[in-house]
Amino acid sequence: MSILHFLDFLGVAVFAISGALVASRKEMDLIGFTLMASLTGIGGGTVRDLLLGQDVFWIKTPYYLGVCLLMAFIVFFTAHIIRRRFVVVLWADALGIAAYSVLGAEVALLAGANELVAIVMGVMTATFGGLVRDVICLETPLILRKEVYATGAMVGASVYVGLGFMGISDTWAALSGFSAGFVIRSGGIALGWTLPTYKPHPGRNYD
Amino acid sequence: MSILHFLDFLGVAVFAISGALVASRKEMDLIGFTLMASLTGIGGGTVRDLLLGQDVFWIKTPYYLGVCLLMAFIVFFTAHIIRRRFVVVLWADALGIAAYSVLGAEVALLAGANELVAIVMGVMTATFGGLVRDVICLETPLILRKEVYATGAMVGASVYVGLGFMGISDTWAALSGFSAGFVIRSGGIALGWTLPTYKPHPGRNYD
Amino acid sequence: MSILHFLDFLGVAVFAISGALVASRKEMDLIGFTLMASLTGIGGGTVRDLLLGQDVFWIKTPYYLGVCLLMAFIVFFTAHIIRRRFVVVLWADALGIAAYSVLGAEVALLAGANELVAIVMGVMTATFGGLVRDVICLETPLILRKEVYATGAMVGASVYVGLGFMGISDTWAALSGFSAGFVIRSGGIALGWTLPTYKPHPGRNYD
Repeated sequence: MSILHFLDFLGVAVFAISGALVASRKEMDLIGFTLMASLTGIGGGTVRDLLLGQDVFWIKTPYYLGVCLLMAFIVFFTAHIIRRRFVVVLWADALGIAAYSVLGAEVALLAGANELVAIVMGVMTATFGGLVRDVICLETPLILRKEVYATGAMVGASVYVGLGFMGISDTWAALSGFSAGFVIRSGGIALGWTLPTYKPHPGRNYD
Repeated sequence: MSILHFLDFLGVAVFAISGALVASRKEMDLIGFTLMASLTGIGGGTVRDLLLGQDVFWIKTPYYLGVCLLMAFIVFFTAHIIRRRFVVVLWADALGIAAYSVLGAEVALLAGANELVAIVMGVMTATFGGLVRDVICLETPLILRKEVYATGAMVGASVYVGLGFMGISDTWAALSGFSAGFVIRSGGIALGWTLPTYKPHPGRNYD
Repeated sequence: MSILHFLDFLGVAVFAISGALVASRKEMDLIGFTLMASLTGIGGGTVRDLLLGQDVFWIKTPYYLGVCLLMAFIVFFTAHIIRRRFVVVLWADALGIAAYSVLGAEVALLAGANELVAIVMGVMTATFGGLVRDVICLETPLILRKEVYATGAMVGASVYVGLGFMGISDTWAALSGFSAGFVIRSGGIALGWTLPTYKPHPGRNYD
């Protein structure tokens, strides 16, 4: 199994876990867990495939759905063990963002897109699953929080695309992109890393 | 007209009614009614067709749009007669879920997907129109309520796929799946049926 | 450059500006600005291309993405100059709606859709980018406000389709549709134009 296949399964699994955990915060039943785990787990990759005009990956390869359903079952019966579920949501989401930023960029490059498009595709597919999860469950989308979030996806995709452009092998480029994206987002979660945010001019902006 | 064509028109019509009724709860104008009726009525089928790489059904067959517009007009001028509009939203939505759980599964099978994929497709297309309706109109998505909801869609799709697998004719499988899905969801609406939901361990989970 | 190409760039640019301004209202960082500008700027056109089974425009032509990123940068460093940012969001959104109502209808006609489908496609693609922007950022979707909104898109698309049907040249039909849509929505913003909205019967409707 190549590194990219591994990242693909990892991304689906951790996003599915994050979706199931949010379902647990909303005290859904088991079927609600499986729906939220599936929508979150396969959401980003589905958008990626639709935009690139490719067959949707989980229709061709139903194992991915099996992973989502399995995660939903495991979380349903074990989430009460976790002391702080929202923290686990954040970390699972961080792994997913790092994985999908690389995968989204890679599939775009394979489909013949240029480097800029590949990076944007990485960011969009990395953030989409979590957005769907949070919008459906009426949680504040993580992108609205102050810590670096989309930045992790952008760094991950950029490192992957940049190293590939420089001729580094796909495996090392993917590992580096994944690691870079995860480190950045980890800094946001654990250390509160932020970028300068827009600040309204005091006394000027009314809305 | 086959049973599946009938379910298709029924699903579009009842989801359109539910979208128009939510538009009435938000006191929109007639054009807002037509937009909400259309988005809700054709939303689930559109996602189904996009995921399966097929021509989008309402572009090929504009009659479906005509149904949505007609329902928007009718609801705009008659909704004030209804004593409790939200109850009608729930029942229209229940008919739509039952219809689309069968249709989503059927189209997936026709496109060559396996049984698991077909059931998931049934659940997703059945719940998508209502999710869009509720998210746009800032209503609490029905999936967040305690009664069985996604479960109705899952039962409907599973019965249809299971009976077809056992060699039952398409007409009977579709009727049985539709009825089973509707009965389950009806129990949720009328009798408050629930499945066991996730309960946090008291004193352990902080979020 | 034809009028339709001009409208295409205009629509992307003004929706990107509106997305970046909403990012400023949420005090995001620069990467958040680029994501919101991109999602809002290319959202409507992306849905249009997916529904019609066409290559997604910004993957073929990355200049559009460049426009979104440029607008995100400009807004990030200049939004504090604007006295009332929400008013600029409304006007940028109005230009975008007028442009995309024509473009959505035009692409649908080119793809062989009939007139009704073309008008609905115009309304949907015109309103989609703004819906995504508002849903992600937890703003009240503009369609829920009382002034004419979807109506502007419907008028723009209808004028364009109607004039084309009567044999008017594409350039004049597009200019007329764009102007009509913008005038209607402007009346909503500046003069508070409304259509009669649904009113519940007093003392009858409980929800």
